[in-house]
Amino acid sequence: MNEPVAAQRSDGLIRIRLDVSYDGTDFSGWAAQPDQRTVQGVLEEALGRQPPGDSLASRTVVAGRTDAGVHADAQVLHVDVVPLGAESTGTRIPVDERGIPDLSRMRQRWNRYLPADVRVTSASIAPGGFDARFAALRRHYRYRVSDAPWGVEPLRRRDTLAWRRPLDVDRLNLAAAPLVGLHDFAAFCKQRAGATTIRKLGSMTWQRCDEHLLVADLSADAFCHSMVRGLVGALLMAGDGRRGIGWPAQVLADQERCSAVAPAHGLRLVSVDYPADEGLADRAAEARSVRSLPGSAEPDQS
Amino acid sequence: MNEPVAAQRSDGLIRIRLDVSYDGTDFSGWAAQPDQRTVQGVLEEALGRQPPGDSLASRTVVAGRTDAGVHADAQVLHVDVVPLGAESTGTRIPVDERGIPDLSRMRQRWNRYLPADVRVTSASIAPGGFDARFAALRRHYRYRVSDAPWGVEPLRRRDTLAWRRPLDVDRLNLAAAPLVGLHDFAAFCKQRAGATTIRKLGSMTWQRCDEHLLVADLSADAFCHSMVRGLVGALLMAGDGRRGIGWPAQVLADQERCSAVAPAHGLRLVSVDYPADEGLADRAAEARSVRSLPGSAEPDQS
Repeated sequence: MNEPVAAQRSDGLIRIRLDVSYDGTDFSGWAAQPDQRTVQGVLEEALGRQPPGDSLASRTVVAGRTDAGVHADAQVLHVDVVPLGAESTGTRIPVDERGIPDLSRMRQRWNRYLPADVRVTSASIAPGGFDARFAALRRHYRYRVSDAPWGVEPLRRRDTLAWRRPLDVDRLNLAAAPLVGLHDFAAFCKQRAGATTIRKLGSMTWQRCDEHLLVADLSADAFCHSMVRGLVGALLMAGDGRRGIGWPAQVLADQERCSAVAPAHGLRLVSVDYPADEGLADRAAEARSVRSLPGSAEPDQS
Repeated sequence: MNEPVAAQRSDGLIRIRLDVSYDGTDFSGWAAQPDQRTVQGVLEEALGRQPPGDSLASRTVVAGRTDAGVHADAQVLHVDVVPLGAESTGTRIPVDERGIPDLSRMRQRWNRYLPADVRVTSASIAPGGFDARFAALRRHYRYRVSDAPWGVEPLRRRDTLAWRRPLDVDRLNLAAAPLVGLHDFAAFCKQRAGATTIRKLGSMTWQRCDEHLLVADLSADAFCHSMVRGLVGALLMAGDGRRGIGWPAQVLADQERCSAVAPAHGLRLVSVDYPADEGLADRAAEARSVRSLPGSAEPDQS
């Protein structure tokens, strides 16, 4: 993956893949916004200082744009940089004798500059055809809920929802099953003008991990905006018995926006799957063409 | 354990056992201090309001007094209260037909009043002879360390130390082994005038739980002040190779205060063991007599 051939592109830029982990509590989500503390904003500031910003040739592009308060264990993004020795002046990316940036050293520099609620866990030269957003095959999200009568273990209160009624994991799984597959998830998504809400939910399973902790794992090629939180919110109502097991499927069928949206802080992006290197370019081209159909131009969102 | 016989004592008070969990980050430790936010202070304020304070007949007594920044999964404490129907006026502890307080309801009230960084996970009538401090057989502590080159997973940065050098779990365990047993731990404890630092360390083991996370588990009948952090700090220096495997044992033997004290935030009190109900009174009497020997009057501390 770190072969020089991957680094050298026809436009002379080097694409870097970054894997990052963050605590979403104190961020207004991923996407940079004026006067808001965002993960993208904080990361781009660090990338722009170490090395100086004139070597950054693009903004960061991310696999899963997370909402305010949503966390990530292994978010993936890419950024293009001007290699040392190119026309650009002042660039200070340390490179080895082959012209490949010393990304282990860069990662250390970025992490020294970054606040403790964001870490760059890995930095590598992206293989040819890699695109953090369009080459992604699947996104994996996890939602943590405590149904302890006393609330949430204090040290996990930032990433775990307190649900005051006892939950039945069998009811949760029974209610989730009919939601898996290709559906219009309009009822569970924040609608955006001109954006489709048709998605293929690959899997959604609930487990009780200890006496009081339940975890939902969801995977899909892509999620629409607020979809995971919408699904989890509806399922929790069925899981504690206030709604029937068939209710979430009925909400899906009715396509009326459901108000039972679970809070952001229980949710995390766990990981993102990509095809093997030789399949990256095809996957990106395919996803790009699908997403650019009229009415489906919105990026993936949690 | 909830038999009326346990509730009724000769002094007419009821002793309640509380199990509590807290995130120590924003507390100046367990013990109440003027103008400081402490776990004991916050808990006693909640206990004093729900029910009103005139039913509290004692201060809280805790199994393991934790320092500033140290967490607890299952701290144990007791408090004596005046039961409903006693001479005291204004008391509002809800009781059942046997005069036993409805502690499940009280726990709910306390937790509604408490901030999210402290939870009362269990409240029960203490069995006869129970004393949270003196009847305890063993305290179990855990220390979490990440040796990832990028630091600590952001969501665990409040309870996990970042150690920038790679740690060798075999070195850690080899260095820990000679520290187990009965020793004078003066080198690893904050000395207090007139207090012994002789303790019996029951066990200390290190495990690598995932690629970057190491966990140390320590058990003893009692620890002296700052002892766990002192032990962990010395072992980390041996574990990353900057000191020899035999160095912590040499420090122990030299009895000179070692400056390599691990930070508080990686440490948590995991649990406290008590004997079966019929052994409680004997254990408390035994511990009380040992601790009240001249020169050993200090309470247990982490």
